[in-house]
Amino acid sequence: MSDLFLALIHHPVVDRNGRIVTSAITSLDIHDIARSAHTYGVKRAYIVHPIAEQREFAATVIDHWRFDFGRAFDGRRREALETLKVVETLDDAIADASAIDGKRPLIVHTSARTSGGMMTAELRQKMEAPDTPPIMILFGTGFGLAPSVIERADIILNAIRGPGDYNHLSVRAAVSIILDRLRGR
Amino acid sequence: MSDLFLALIHHPVVDRNGRIVTSAITSLDIHDIARSAHTYGVKRAYIVHPIAEQREFAATVIDHWRFDFGRAFDGRRREALETLKVVETLDDAIADASAIDGKRPLIVHTSARTSGGMMTAELRQKMEAPDTPPIMILFGTGFGLAPSVIERADIILNAIRGPGDYNHLSVRAAVSIILDRLRGR
Repeated sequence: MSDLFLALIHHPVVDRNGRIVTSAITSLDIHDIARSAHTYGVKRAYIVHPIAEQREFAATVIDHWRFDFGRAFDGRRREALETLKVVETLDDAIADASAIDGKRPLIVHTSARTSGGMMTAELRQKMEAPDTPPIMILFGTGFGLAPSVIERADIILNAIRGPGDYNHLSVRAAVSIILDRLRGR
Repeated sequence: MSDLFLALIHHPVVDRNGRIVTSAITSLDIHDIARSAHTYGVKRAYIVHPIAEQREFAATVIDHWRFDFGRAFDGRRREALETLKVVETLDDAIADASAIDGKRPLIVHTSARTSGGMMTAELRQKMEAPDTPPIMILFGTGFGLAPSVIERADIILNAIRGPGDYNHLSVRAAVSIILDRLRGR
């Protein structure tokens, strides 16, 4: 089975008007995504942010639970947070994952607006086949990944859909649903 | 297809030590669960809390987006929040759902610790069969539903599992994963 990585991208993402912005890291994204990633056996989940102060904030949230109060208070939360790594750019995340696995991961683009791309079931099959390289799934905060990010992708994943047309999920929900589709029992 | 309801329970739930407690409503649960519920065609999602001040807090969060700033700012968020109803007890939620559908929903219990119950795939099949009554899925905040809540249930759903043993998901993640398993395309 392919090793699985994910990257939560804060720049470049779009706002509600489609403008390119840099979103803020939230402590809730950190916790929820760490817990979902660890539940589904993600090898490393990257929090990607170009601004040093934001990366320091994320590191503070994580270290609080790793070393201080949190370690004694809730060991399961600490364990999940050890799945995370805070980096400056997507290239840093790719380099780190490549060093772990000895090969470069295939980059998977996600969006709430894609159709005509790969289905999650197909990606799961691919990941379970022998010799598939590791996979890194990109998730955009704000209103989603900027269009330019698609150029970095080897695989474009179709949007998650329910029975109707509305699919305005939080990034935390999207991460957990895609991980369950790829790795759930 | 059966109509689908869900109820987010704040009492009786357990804390990390298994004690029966009442948890606080968080605005993030409200938003994330509304968006996931609306994406998957949930007919109504109930926020269940025994304390009036907490129910007022939830109503304020919802009304902020329905009527004020939020309405102009983000119509998709407003639309999702209209799926929510804040009630005092599980019985109130059941009575409301029964009035909408003209019959009492089957109550489905969820927990991160259940095995030997029904699989989500089996419940999905049941919901897609003709003549199945509406379904109401209960989710516990804090560290999950108190043991006594199981007595209210018609169906006990198995825990969500990834490839390993760790399954300490946030309630927001659990809601979105179970909805996707029952109603995802």
